[in-house]
Amino acid sequence: MPRKIYAALVHYPVVDKHAQVVSTSVTNLDIHDISRSARTYDLDAYYLVTPIEAQHWLVNTILEHWNTGWGSTYNENRKDALGLTKCVTDIGALVQDVAAECGESPILVVTSARSYPNTISFGDLRDTLQADGPPVIIIFGTGWGLHPEVISEADLILEPIMGRGDFNHLSVRAAAAIIFDRLLGNGR
Amino acid sequence: MPRKIYAALVHYPVVDKHAQVVSTSVTNLDIHDISRSARTYDLDAYYLVTPIEAQHWLVNTILEHWNTGWGSTYNENRKDALGLTKCVTDIGALVQDVAAECGESPILVVTSARSYPNTISFGDLRDTLQADGPPVIIIFGTGWGLHPEVISEADLILEPIMGRGDFNHLSVRAAAAIIFDRLLGNGR
Repeated sequence: MPRKIYAALVHYPVVDKHAQVVSTSVTNLDIHDISRSARTYDLDAYYLVTPIEAQHWLVNTILEHWNTGWGSTYNENRKDALGLTKCVTDIGALVQDVAAECGESPILVVTSARSYPNTISFGDLRDTLQADGPPVIIIFGTGWGLHPEVISEADLILEPIMGRGDFNHLSVRAAAAIIFDRLLGNGR
Repeated sequence: MPRKIYAALVHYPVVDKHAQVVSTSVTNLDIHDISRSARTYDLDAYYLVTPIEAQHWLVNTILEHWNTGWGSTYNENRKDALGLTKCVTDIGALVQDVAAECGESPILVVTSARSYPNTISFGDLRDTLQADGPPVIIIFGTGWGLHPEVISEADLILEPIMGRGDFNHLSVRAAAAIIFDRLLGNGR
């Protein structure tokens, strides 16, 4: 059975520019852009992770609009992409949901713009994803990045994306697209 | 001298879902996300192309906020990225601006999610960009894509991004990020 691959966008716990823990707001384009990228690279689901109940209501209202409401006939491609998208309260619930679906515990891979000593390279993670094995969740942070606790508790830390030069302040939407393409695309 | 490379996001002429020519609105995240991706891959400038004067005012107000206003000290990385970004009226003005800066006419490369018989592959365009030569502008469309007239008048049409499967309805922000990475990145 080919490996199941998931993405998750974490809104808590993440850090702000002063490295303080914060909870960020879900944004409409983080739902749409990353759902569309996840669908393009044939991921099994895309999770929005936030403990704030009002944000779950917001996400679910947007998803209903596109999945079963007016948007579902206006733009069927969008329905196709947003059909992948779910909302969970925290990383524990994310892991439980994937484990329940797959019947085994997932491997957690965190992403960061920062360098860590023990990262896995894009090439090695690409090879891992191609081999059979337990499900993998690729985890992205909002704000100024995932809280260090999330990083330290992950199974794998993916190396940062470097472009040309030392500026690597990509939006999370751009970073997710590039990471899916590097790990799963056939385009170069 | 290494080749100069530019990106442009066209808001007119593009098509809507019924293949009718329309002018789309500039959005704040199209400015930010693609500026940040362009800066990460060390492009020489990023142009927003729209004939609507009120949109020029909007773009320039946003750019001023981040380049010289309050935002320039709040987030210096954002200033660094948005310093690349300019606004022009149409593709003619885009070509003139690049030609004036470089002293020679640019090669226009258009991008599309559709397939055309005479596309250039990512690998071939990557080789082209690495060789010396005239400046290159990579042109992206908003809405449902560039008007056929823009496609037919371009020098080169880049092959579409395909992920895994036949769904390739990426956001333009995601597509631009992947295209810069495939053409200019070192990450796989």
